[in-house]
Amino acid sequence: MRAVVFEQFHQFPALKDVERPTPGSGEVLLKVAGAGACHSDVSVYREFDAEHPGNIQPSFVLGHETAGWIEELGPGVTGLEKGSAHLVYGPTGCGHCRQCVQSRENYCENTATNPALAIGLGRDGGMAEYVCVPARNLVPLGEADPVAAAPLADAALTPYHAVRLAERPLAGGGRYALVIGLGGLGQIAVQILTALTGATVVATDTKPEAMERAAARGAVTVPGGEGQAERIRELTGGRGADAVFDFVGAAPTVELAKSSAGVGSTVVIVGIAGGTVEWNFYGTAYESALMSTYWGSIADLHDVAAMYRAGQIVPDVETFTMDEAPEAYRRLEAGELSGRAVVVPHS
Amino acid sequence: MRAVVFEQFHQFPALKDVERPTPGSGEVLLKVAGAGACHSDVSVYREFDAEHPGNIQPSFVLGHETAGWIEELGPGVTGLEKGSAHLVYGPTGCGHCRQCVQSRENYCENTATNPALAIGLGRDGGMAEYVCVPARNLVPLGEADPVAAAPLADAALTPYHAVRLAERPLAGGGRYALVIGLGGLGQIAVQILTALTGATVVATDTKPEAMERAAARGAVTVPGGEGQAERIRELTGGRGADAVFDFVGAAPTVELAKSSAGVGSTVVIVGIAGGTVEWNFYGTAYESALMSTYWGSIADLHDVAAMYRAGQIVPDVETFTMDEAPEAYRRLEAGELSGRAVVVPHS
Amino acid sequence: MRAVVFEQFHQFPALKDVERPTPGSGEVLLKVAGAGACHSDVSVYREFDAEHPGNIQPSFVLGHETAGWIEELGPGVTGLEKGSAHLVYGPTGCGHCRQCVQSRENYCENTATNPALAIGLGRDGGMAEYVCVPARNLVPLGEADPVAAAPLADAALTPYHAVRLAERPLAGGGRYALVIGLGGLGQIAVQILTALTGATVVATDTKPEAMERAAARGAVTVPGGEGQAERIRELTGGRGADAVFDFVGAAPTVELAKSSAGVGSTVVIVGIAGGTVEWNFYGTAYESALMSTYWGSIADLHDVAAMYRAGQIVPDVETFTMDEAPEAYRRLEAGELSGRAVVVPHS
Amino acid sequence: MRAVVFEQFHQFPALKDVERPTPGSGEVLLKVAGAGACHSDVSVYREFDAEHPGNIQPSFVLGHETAGWIEELGPGVTGLEKGSAHLVYGPTGCGHCRQCVQSRENYCENTATNPALAIGLGRDGGMAEYVCVPARNLVPLGEADPVAAAPLADAALTPYHAVRLAERPLAGGGRYALVIGLGGLGQIAVQILTALTGATVVATDTKPEAMERAAARGAVTVPGGEGQAERIRELTGGRGADAVFDFVGAAPTVELAKSSAGVGSTVVIVGIAGGTVEWNFYGTAYESALMSTYWGSIADLHDVAAMYRAGQIVPDVETFTMDEAPEAYRRLEAGELSGRAVVVPHS
Repeated sequence: MRAVVFEQFHQFPALKDVERPTPGSGEVLLKVAGAGACHSDVSVYREFDAEHPGNIQPSFVLGHETAGWIEELGPGVTGLEKGSAHLVYGPTGCGHCRQCVQSRENYCENTATNPALAIGLGRDGGMAEYVCVPARNLVPLGEADPVAAAPLADAALTPYHAVRLAERPLAGGGRYALVIGLGGLGQIAVQILTALTGATVVATDTKPEAMERAAARGAVTVPGGEGQAERIRELTGGRGADAVFDFVGAAPTVELAKSSAGVGSTVVIVGIAGGTVEWNFYGTAYESALMSTYWGSIADLHDVAAMYRAGQIVPDVETFTMDEAPEAYRRLEAGELSGRAVVVPHS
Repeated sequence: MRAVVFEQFHQFPALKDVERPTPGSGEVLLKVAGAGACHSDVSVYREFDAEHPGNIQPSFVLGHETAGWIEELGPGVTGLEKGSAHLVYGPTGCGHCRQCVQSRENYCENTATNPALAIGLGRDGGMAEYVCVPARNLVPLGEADPVAAAPLADAALTPYHAVRLAERPLAGGGRYALVIGLGGLGQIAVQILTALTGATVVATDTKPEAMERAAARGAVTVPGGEGQAERIRELTGGRGADAVFDFVGAAPTVELAKSSAGVGSTVVIVGIAGGTVEWNFYGTAYESALMSTYWGSIADLHDVAAMYRAGQIVPDVETFTMDEAPEAYRRLEAGELSGRAVVVPHS
Repeated sequence: MRAVVFEQFHQFPALKDVERPTPGSGEVLLKVAGAGACHSDVSVYREFDAEHPGNIQPSFVLGHETAGWIEELGPGVTGLEKGSAHLVYGPTGCGHCRQCVQSRENYCENTATNPALAIGLGRDGGMAEYVCVPARNLVPLGEADPVAAAPLADAALTPYHAVRLAERPLAGGGRYALVIGLGGLGQIAVQILTALTGATVVATDTKPEAMERAAARGAVTVPGGEGQAERIRELTGGRGADAVFDFVGAAPTVELAKSSAGVGSTVVIVGIAGGTVEWNFYGTAYESALMSTYWGSIADLHDVAAMYRAGQIVPDVETFTMDEAPEAYRRLEAGELSGRAVVVPHS
Repeated sequence: MRAVVFEQFHQFPALKDVERPTPGSGEVLLKVAGAGACHSDVSVYREFDAEHPGNIQPSFVLGHETAGWIEELGPGVTGLEKGSAHLVYGPTGCGHCRQCVQSRENYCENTATNPALAIGLGRDGGMAEYVCVPARNLVPLGEADPVAAAPLADAALTPYHAVRLAERPLAGGGRYALVIGLGGLGQIAVQILTALTGATVVATDTKPEAMERAAARGAVTVPGGEGQAERIRELTGGRGADAVFDFVGAAPTVELAKSSAGVGSTVVIVGIAGGTVEWNFYGTAYESALMSTYWGSIADLHDVAAMYRAGQIVPDVETFTMDEAPEAYRRLEAGELSGRAVVVPHS
């Protein structure tokens, strides 16, 4: 079968012919419906090197945003039907630590000794015609389209989990949420906030097109530049936002996130630009909680799938054939995509 | 000034001329914009008698759903502007018990010794041209219309508080809420659930017209009668609802509420029909929490006002002049109203 | 090897020689340190019959409260060390439903089609020299004694989970908890409440000896009979308890639980005596949540193990050799045990 | 009567004869049992100046930690008994904003326009023979000693509120809490954590005497200096603490707080030393929430009083007569106190 293989660090992935895998015990063979191309793939093949954790060493098939149909059940797997469509939860933890038993394999306490970080990150992923995944990483999609669903596994799971971290300050009427950065994850964050909370969603970005899209999804938008912070403060009733989500994570956006947050708020930094800011008792609203987050839990992905099936999350996708997969990564790197790139191997 | 006075038990209230009150220390004189007529007023003047708690003894002006404009500030009141529009929080607790200091005057621990249960229940309420209320019972309305706002003080506050009790099971994607009884409070419950949660809202009533209204507000409706419980079970994904709100409270509706609830759900009985049901370990879903509730807190009313200002809560109202106030109560008793009756004294 | 086998319904279990099992894929062979005998075993072999769910059909080895040392790792199991001591989480869910992925296999949505309800309930349990269990059902005990640990898997897990259900009303200073029924689970509930909350723990039972034991663990005790409810009300500051745990579940204890609960409290019925009570809006404190519960989650068992290791939970146990196992069940049925019976196969 | 008066900025307070006040409407005259001297008083008279908020301008009587007996009820006050002992909640908010109605007057949204920040901070406080306070600021002490209770109003209320902010990560068995800084507030934090949670409490300070005191209260202590962070990491099971409370707030302690915190933890900076640290996505455990806090709510103070009455909080106090009040402040400034200084006017 054909697959997009990450062969070595600092090398663009290659479209290759590889052997179709066989499901091991507790695993399932999935016929891939769609596989999303993600910015973190680019980080891995462009920036990582042998000094990075052993559990993401090449060579492996890329693709940590995957959906497909069950083709074959491995030994010991019961209760799953062939042909049924599922999303794949990416992280593959040890399965028995305190985090894993709560479905938070993204925070597995034994990451250092796990053979892989995730499906598509250290072990073969979904950017291929078929992929083997543990049965417990499957989340049923029912009748919903598995192609457009693929990006949910990361581009929706991550903002969903971030929004749930701010569940308390956003619960109730008259709340304000701020979304900074309106790329793939930010757009879905706007959809999730609109669906799950009654908050006024304020959204900001530098690209007018992204803001229009967010506005169409119910956000009140604020352009970057002069007066941005003041306008946000004003829109959040003068008190500051109850929750802020920063999908960029550069120093200026983290600074904006912090300073736009009100008393008792939650500020979640999702973007991995790695900006550094100063924190001081007198420079932050009281009880405004600043935190980072990474990916999400299997339980979260069940909820994300339900929202997708209910039409509450509609990812923006551009589809590519298997042959076009390298082109998808090229356009991703060049910033030429307007939606999430999804490779469709059996089109 | 003119006022609707509850003069003695078992007697229909009278439209009378009374003296315009003067605000005491810490109080404000409000020029009434609108005063809602509530079913519990009817219970009080039809069913109550001298054996009922001393803090709701007649004679007093009715009206525990009031909104108006500040006309005069009593001694010691600062920070409030004349002419500004406010909602009135009804319950008048002792102000210093554990419940009152958390704004839950509806659950004041000293109810038995308080001089009144609430504004309009034991002390003069809003069904008059003017009313005196403690400054701390005011909730600002800003630019929003204070006439249609009046019912919020009970008909929206009560379901809002009930919905917040089920905050945990309803948080997240893929949840199900069931609303039983689609009168004034039930209709607003549908609006609140639609605005604040991502849940599929299932609603049921015996009146087709009420169900149409709920459907227009985003609910999936189920008629009463044969197959009602099965249809609800099916619509809640076979697992049962994550939260159930019963605005009737009769034995069959409480039974339906209980049996429609899934594992880990919250079942809130709001309606005061006083039905009795049996509870048994083996007859209820695990960790399904059955509880009653009564009215809400001042903090809740701030949130309700914000939702009203944002257009998330739109009460159905029919307005009446002061002269027509008795007619409003007559039609309320006869079940001839299609929305909440609001008396507008200065129309 | 020798094992206590439940061979057919309505028949006392037999001590038999059976083949030592071999761990399947994802499983571990455990050398049993201790296996607790539980009242529910008695229900199963005395009261159940072929009409009960297919997933608890005999014949199988009893023992759903097990601790032991890893003897052998089955195929695909990594990250676990031979000889290390572990507790066994009993329930065996499907592993991929919404409940299972959150470690709540006790509430698995596919119970009806699972081959067994739990280890020791439908598949071979720990009342044998060796037992095979899924690796993900293991909870590490570190250096702590695995013999006395065995009962934790049910007799501590169940009350721990119940206490966590009342986390909110018990959080903070000045709270009151009531424990009804001071057998094995009730005694551990007192220990858990004393360790995890600052609440005044009120405990009641009909046996003076049980109450003495609870008093030594920090509870304020109230005898049954005349004045019991009044005394409890008085000890809970007149307001009623913030949380009530009923480990009996008979009609009079559920009634006592309900009537002793204050506004906003949580009432958890744990005991399975199956009593029926009446519930009415006017007969229950406002927002007092009545619910049942069953067993607990794997995550809970991790916490229970930590408390055991810290000396916060100390189960009362009586040990028996493998030969004495039938005697242990006999004394359990006769009510002649003063602590949990633990069978020690390798003594 | 005699009182300790803060007369002008940058001037040591003076013991003076002033007129005994008369309770206004809604107020109560309290005969002072004890008044605590607090570090923030020193900041106010040493460091503040006319540029500081108008609501703490001199001259006024100091004392924002006060307990006493009701001497006289002002107009409109009911339900309170003369001679009964009460704690005084300090903050005096507007009483009608969203924060105040939830008893969080410490976060009043109208602080800028309130006439005073708190009783003893902008209006006459408790360091006098008598003080007038709003009835709703009273918290009943019952039979408990009001002298030693005085410091609870700040030195216990502040850490209590901080601990409640970390309620979620500390709930359950096997949790770890870290307390940095073992002065008055830190010592009480240890007592609160020991009483309300099952967490292992790790405590660190530079003074051996303070650590001995904390150890006697159940904490595991770690000395400052070389290896401090490593030792803390080790004591928190290698995962880091679930909650960290920093009662110093200098750059090194905030840095220690951040780096000792585990995944999903809460880090509360209470101390006002104003240190600045850097925050970066990659330098903090995932979902570790960093926040500040200030004082607490009236509801919190009710809980604190209950814990004091139950013997769960025992403040370390040194008492002084009215004549010795200036000496109390002198020793406070010199760091010569081993407990909280409480002035007892009627000794």
